[in-house]
Amino acid sequence: MIERYTRPAMAKIWSDERRYRIILEIEEALLEEISGEKGVPPAEIRSLKSALGPALLEQVKAQEAKSGHEVIALLSVVARAIEAQAPNLVRYLHYGLTSSDVLDTAFALQLRDATDLIIAGWEEAASVLRALSRKHELSWMPGRTHGVHAEPITLGVKLAGWHAEAQRNIERLKRAKELVSYGKCSGAVGAFTHLSPQLEARVCARLGLKPEPVATQVIPRDRHADYFHALVLSAAAIERFALEIRHLQRTEVLELEEPFGSGQKGSSAMPHKRNPVLCENLCGLSRLIRSYESAAVENIGLWHERDISHSSVERVIFPDALIALDFMLARFKTVLDGLKVNLERMRENLDSSLGLVFSQKVLLRLIDAGMPRLKAYDVVQKCAMRTWKSREPFHKALEADAQVIKRLSKKDIAACFDLAAYRGEVREILRRGGVR
Amino acid sequence: MIERYTRPAMAKIWSDERRYRIILEIEEALLEEISGEKGVPPAEIRSLKSALGPALLEQVKAQEAKSGHEVIALLSVVARAIEAQAPNLVRYLHYGLTSSDVLDTAFALQLRDATDLIIAGWEEAASVLRALSRKHELSWMPGRTHGVHAEPITLGVKLAGWHAEAQRNIERLKRAKELVSYGKCSGAVGAFTHLSPQLEARVCARLGLKPEPVATQVIPRDRHADYFHALVLSAAAIERFALEIRHLQRTEVLELEEPFGSGQKGSSAMPHKRNPVLCENLCGLSRLIRSYESAAVENIGLWHERDISHSSVERVIFPDALIALDFMLARFKTVLDGLKVNLERMRENLDSSLGLVFSQKVLLRLIDAGMPRLKAYDVVQKCAMRTWKSREPFHKALEADAQVIKRLSKKDIAACFDLAAYRGEVREILRRGGVR
Amino acid sequence: MIERYTRPAMAKIWSDERRYRIILEIEEALLEEISGEKGVPPAEIRSLKSALGPALLEQVKAQEAKSGHEVIALLSVVARAIEAQAPNLVRYLHYGLTSSDVLDTAFALQLRDATDLIIAGWEEAASVLRALSRKHELSWMPGRTHGVHAEPITLGVKLAGWHAEAQRNIERLKRAKELVSYGKCSGAVGAFTHLSPQLEARVCARLGLKPEPVATQVIPRDRHADYFHALVLSAAAIERFALEIRHLQRTEVLELEEPFGSGQKGSSAMPHKRNPVLCENLCGLSRLIRSYESAAVENIGLWHERDISHSSVERVIFPDALIALDFMLARFKTVLDGLKVNLERMRENLDSSLGLVFSQKVLLRLIDAGMPRLKAYDVVQKCAMRTWKSREPFHKALEADAQVIKRLSKKDIAACFDLAAYRGEVREILRRGGVR
Amino acid sequence: MIERYTRPAMAKIWSDERRYRIILEIEEALLEEISGEKGVPPAEIRSLKSALGPALLEQVKAQEAKSGHEVIALLSVVARAIEAQAPNLVRYLHYGLTSSDVLDTAFALQLRDATDLIIAGWEEAASVLRALSRKHELSWMPGRTHGVHAEPITLGVKLAGWHAEAQRNIERLKRAKELVSYGKCSGAVGAFTHLSPQLEARVCARLGLKPEPVATQVIPRDRHADYFHALVLSAAAIERFALEIRHLQRTEVLELEEPFGSGQKGSSAMPHKRNPVLCENLCGLSRLIRSYESAAVENIGLWHERDISHSSVERVIFPDALIALDFMLARFKTVLDGLKVNLERMRENLDSSLGLVFSQKVLLRLIDAGMPRLKAYDVVQKCAMRTWKSREPFHKALEADAQVIKRLSKKDIAACFDLAAYRGEVREILRRGGVR
Repeated sequence: MIERYTRPAMAKIWSDERRYRIILEIEEALLEEISGEKGVPPAEIRSLKSALGPALLEQVKAQEAKSGHEVIALLSVVARAIEAQAPNLVRYLHYGLTSSDVLDTAFALQLRDATDLIIAGWEEAASVLRALSRKHELSWMPGRTHGVHAEPITLGVKLAGWHAEAQRNIERLKRAKELVSYGKCSGAVGAFTHLSPQLEARVCARLGLKPEPVATQVIPRDRHADYFHALVLSAAAIERFALEIRHLQRTEVLELEEPFGSGQKGSSAMPHKRNPVLCENLCGLSRLIRSYESAAVENIGLWHERDISHSSVERVIFPDALIALDFMLARFKTVLDGLKVNLERMRENLDSSLGLVFSQKVLLRLIDAGMPRLKAYDVVQKCAMRTWKSREPFHKALEADAQVIKRLSKKDIAACFDLAAYRGEVREILRRGGVR
Repeated sequence: MIERYTRPAMAKIWSDERRYRIILEIEEALLEEISGEKGVPPAEIRSLKSALGPALLEQVKAQEAKSGHEVIALLSVVARAIEAQAPNLVRYLHYGLTSSDVLDTAFALQLRDATDLIIAGWEEAASVLRALSRKHELSWMPGRTHGVHAEPITLGVKLAGWHAEAQRNIERLKRAKELVSYGKCSGAVGAFTHLSPQLEARVCARLGLKPEPVATQVIPRDRHADYFHALVLSAAAIERFALEIRHLQRTEVLELEEPFGSGQKGSSAMPHKRNPVLCENLCGLSRLIRSYESAAVENIGLWHERDISHSSVERVIFPDALIALDFMLARFKTVLDGLKVNLERMRENLDSSLGLVFSQKVLLRLIDAGMPRLKAYDVVQKCAMRTWKSREPFHKALEADAQVIKRLSKKDIAACFDLAAYRGEVREILRRGGVR
Repeated sequence: MIERYTRPAMAKIWSDERRYRIILEIEEALLEEISGEKGVPPAEIRSLKSALGPALLEQVKAQEAKSGHEVIALLSVVARAIEAQAPNLVRYLHYGLTSSDVLDTAFALQLRDATDLIIAGWEEAASVLRALSRKHELSWMPGRTHGVHAEPITLGVKLAGWHAEAQRNIERLKRAKELVSYGKCSGAVGAFTHLSPQLEARVCARLGLKPEPVATQVIPRDRHADYFHALVLSAAAIERFALEIRHLQRTEVLELEEPFGSGQKGSSAMPHKRNPVLCENLCGLSRLIRSYESAAVENIGLWHERDISHSSVERVIFPDALIALDFMLARFKTVLDGLKVNLERMRENLDSSLGLVFSQKVLLRLIDAGMPRLKAYDVVQKCAMRTWKSREPFHKALEADAQVIKRLSKKDIAACFDLAAYRGEVREILRRGGVR
Repeated sequence: MIERYTRPAMAKIWSDERRYRIILEIEEALLEEISGEKGVPPAEIRSLKSALGPALLEQVKAQEAKSGHEVIALLSVVARAIEAQAPNLVRYLHYGLTSSDVLDTAFALQLRDATDLIIAGWEEAASVLRALSRKHELSWMPGRTHGVHAEPITLGVKLAGWHAEAQRNIERLKRAKELVSYGKCSGAVGAFTHLSPQLEARVCARLGLKPEPVATQVIPRDRHADYFHALVLSAAAIERFALEIRHLQRTEVLELEEPFGSGQKGSSAMPHKRNPVLCENLCGLSRLIRSYESAAVENIGLWHERDISHSSVERVIFPDALIALDFMLARFKTVLDGLKVNLERMRENLDSSLGLVFSQKVLLRLIDAGMPRLKAYDVVQKCAMRTWKSREPFHKALEADAQVIKRLSKKDIAACFDLAAYRGEVREILRRGGVR
């Protein structure tokens, strides 16, 4: 992923250095398990990880360029470096393992760490959402369907929906992490030709992983494709929220505004512009992450006990998607932290529909008062159309309608327009959304 | 989905008639709940579903063509039909509801039924896989990585891996079903402007659903996009298995063959051909189902309290994917039921690599016997290359190597080539895969 | 594709009957070419196509269910039906051909016909766009970037852009049609084992096709994947236009409205609503068509001289995408034909930004008058911010600024706000867009 | 794109430095055009590009971090650097332009250069394909459909098909380059509010571009989405070829082998393995490039006169896809250059089907000899099945069949098995494929 969208902690997880360290941890875990039987002294084992300094990293790269095989390059270089002080270790390094045993197990550990960062990002965002939802529990604004005013809603309710979706995504990510927390040492075709299932279980336990029940040369890729969807859905959630802010920031609506730094330039041409560029960026990044997914799914159908076509794909899309999502969560939190809420504009916009947003309430009161549904529907639609054309407030149009007035008193009509009546429902929604 | 890939039980779930029936069940559930308060006699409620016959279905279609609104069309036609005998019901029909309350709740019920069919299809396939895996627990064949012989494997182990993946897919589908088993009656913007959260909970309970914690006009689409992935992964699993059979059926390999009917024609041109067309078809259908997914994810970002852009997408991709997957599972079971296993060919192919598939075992024995790993690697590679070029059996090449023979006796070497030694591991793999 | 989005002319192209007729036309073309050499009397050849009635279609279906091979089923049934009167024809029917020779050639002819319908649909839509663009050449409205008012634009300019994109899509479709207008009779692996390249060229010429230069068993699928993109881009263009209408129809903007029938119901709940449901539907359908594309591209990599995994995919996505696109074009034309343009609202919205949309013009005049660019930028931004906060018209804010007034007279400032000055540019844009 | 798949020449095109240089070239082109009218001396203009050294690049980055706007940052830094010696230039720098005028025009120039590299890569690969195809014009091998032996083919014919597809991709890329070779200076909403269409045309001509007929703030994104497909199809072609090599390298087939360096290690576990890892990698990279496409298409539907959601997507997918494709072409050429062709194995495999691959030839001879087609089909299928089961050569089985022998002499039968008869067709195919 390009630097612009990369944050250091996530980038570090995906560095070559970090991967090599994890690989050595896995080799170490195996050595610990077989040290008794094979006679590898603890002191030698301790020397393994300490070997990996910057000079060695360079040597690994040079070696890989020659041999075309990353794991062999790493192990040769390390073996050469510690051979003198740890001859027994070197003999049993990578004992009975195939490259994928360490690569896939390392991948699991990287994914686990990366997922923890993502979950933490969501939790921070969710916490701001919760606070904002509570603060705006009763900040009324037009609810909109099809981009058209529907019935009133509060900003708190809207944000409670976001909070609930954030929680669902956190749950997804936790499950996704479990899904990929599997390691293997079952060898070249997964048949335990050299190491036993029992040994595998102990090595995995040392690493905090479960052993893959039935592997091929690799951990089956349905796990990774399943995992990936959690990233896609997280990005899509942020996209939905960002899209909403973009809509609400358009010139004519202007109910919300993302933060705009005092030194920031909106446009090279139009000095007055405050554009929702952070949120637009979030939408684009989600588009990007979503696009990767088909490749993750195509990786499932490897040939026989594996082919390596998935490798290049995974080298790109997993770090890229996780780095971009990590960036999105941080940027989304920035947007929420500085979100400007224009309460007056929300009220103005709500009022601009002249009460039409209460039409269904009137419809139901007419039905309760004995009017058949279809009849009531026609009556209300007729009054609504009058308001729509004449700009006369809806309650006036209703009061002027003979059919309505036969069934409802002015007070009955007024009651249909009372937002205070919904306090209880609003509170219950926030409670359901985990905000109250 | 085109007729060719459609089975009747799944198609029925997605028929207009079935959807309309479910919608009326939902309306009925609400009416039951409010009947006391509003005064709708039970006898009237019972008349609701019975109204829907073929004549009415035609009327609904005609009405929708005029009004451009399916739910209103359905309810108008039904209301007209039962008005005389059920005037109170008609008055409170769809009371306080918005179309999406019934459409989304109906969608949940359709998805639930459809998922049950898919799970049943997987369970049947898994059961055949289990039997085949047990039968071929010790049917040895070349394990292959990169399409090249690696170490030996048994067909039972391969199938245990498929069984484990089938089980993962069944788990996914069960979870996916839970994910979409949510209903709503929270109205036009999800703010409970007309009906209470408590009423919603009771209506949903009647239908065996949970109430959506925070809805907009619709159930949030991350649920459906999450659900869809279970279909994609199920299809991808079958694709992986079908791809394997295709590989193993190629002329030069011919270890497995999909069933070929006695009346079947392989090719209009080449009478001798037996092509794995069923499995090729399964691969194509997975490609198709996989492609739909991006649209399911794009549906998440609806505007404000909803726009209706998702509707056309869902009308196509959910029935199409479920119908195609249902067909795939049935066809996959047909393939498994008639699968021809050529045991001799498996053995011939295994023998054709002259023992090279046991090279790592020799490598490890040399290490155990005191040879440094990299040295041992070079020695084994040299012998392997000799076998590769001269077609001399690998154990002969080893016996002829001075370095080897210094460390290993002929008996030691022979032990490296003994498949019987792996019985225990094979049994354990089958146990892990849920087969034993 | 589901009935709801299917128009009859396009559906007919993709019917089994039509495909079978085309296959017989291809067989006929070959028979015509070899009749002299093989001795098939013209009268027999004429009997071929006439054979195909409804009864035979049923028999083909029944036969295919048994043999699992569509082309063989068709030819057997037809051969049986005309055997008595055309024995020589029957002997040489399908002579030297493989199924794909006729299937792929037939597919080319179907695609050609279907593309012609799509091009016609675009041409009708483009014609309405041209008329609307000319009509609204000088209908000013806010140009918007990031959803925020930028500089003024006319509806005519916006529509000229749509017209230009429509023309690009027509060009794409014409090229795409050429790309797939290739036939083949080169046999089972494309090696002309039975018929000659010269004969193939003559048969193709009879059908208005070019011979595929180098085929395998099939026409190479890069042609079809390339073709498919033209459908995706056409759908995406309509989506862009529909998205714009949806934006401009939102309650607060309301500059455009899609047609709303007098009998139409906007919502089951809110009688006053006029929702851009046609345009939302167009956006959803584009999402659907776009999603199919990855499957079209995956079809390229067939095994060796072909496998049949592409077949199921193509049976679904080509008809579905073409039927849906055909529907989209018709619906888009309906939207344009009934498009309501609210000129006053466009003007009101434009005025609502108090002249800020002219800020860059002022900036440039200040530069021309000798102010350094960055200085001018700061001055204009300051005045813009004042207007933004105080709601004082921008030209007043400028007149009140000492730095501005030192450089520009009131008349100079007024000239920056004059829309009439842009007539020439607008006319030129329309000319470039093919509208004038 | 990660370093592993990046080659320097392509990477340079996408560096910040290169982009900034191109932006300054565009600014320069405009200044040249307006210098007479505005009074900017040529000497000042010449100072523009020379300003950009490493120190300035750092300043731009720092400035962008503050202002959040890349173009403004670049121009401010450059302006500050050359203000003293070029005051008139600085005043008219970016005169009348909006950021997208330079960014999109620069993007066109980058895409043009990148496409040239890709075309050159294809031309090199095509040249090797041509040579190989000619060399193996008559190297017979089994043609395979469904992975099963069909009729014979030559490697030359197979490669001629690849060459033809390579040529189609070169044509596509040339057209794609034309499609995106458009620039703009039409300002913030494309309405030429500040600069004239005539000036734009002259500036574009200086840069070797055409002016965009109707732009919004940006060049319409259907151009870029159309362009992108050429990359996807190029990658898919290489994937198809690589897939074929992988198939032909599997242990049981082994007709082709990709190059394997003498120092290369095939596996950390199995020293004898030669895996087609280069080709597997090519398949994975195509999967990756293909996946990006949906995002490119989603970028078309920008809001109004543009939103900036496409920007983050384009910053990643265009460089990444072009860099990966550039790498693929180079690697593909490496594979072709070192491709090992096992002629004996090709012949052995061909012979292994005992002559069944000539079955259709026999079928047609029987028809020519007066046997009805369906009868002949059954007779040939019966003989084929006998051969299939008994391993008796097909021509023997035919000679032993009473029905056959009634119609065909032994010589007639032998003629059906003669590969030399196809020389003319093979030559013609190579000619058609542009190889001869």
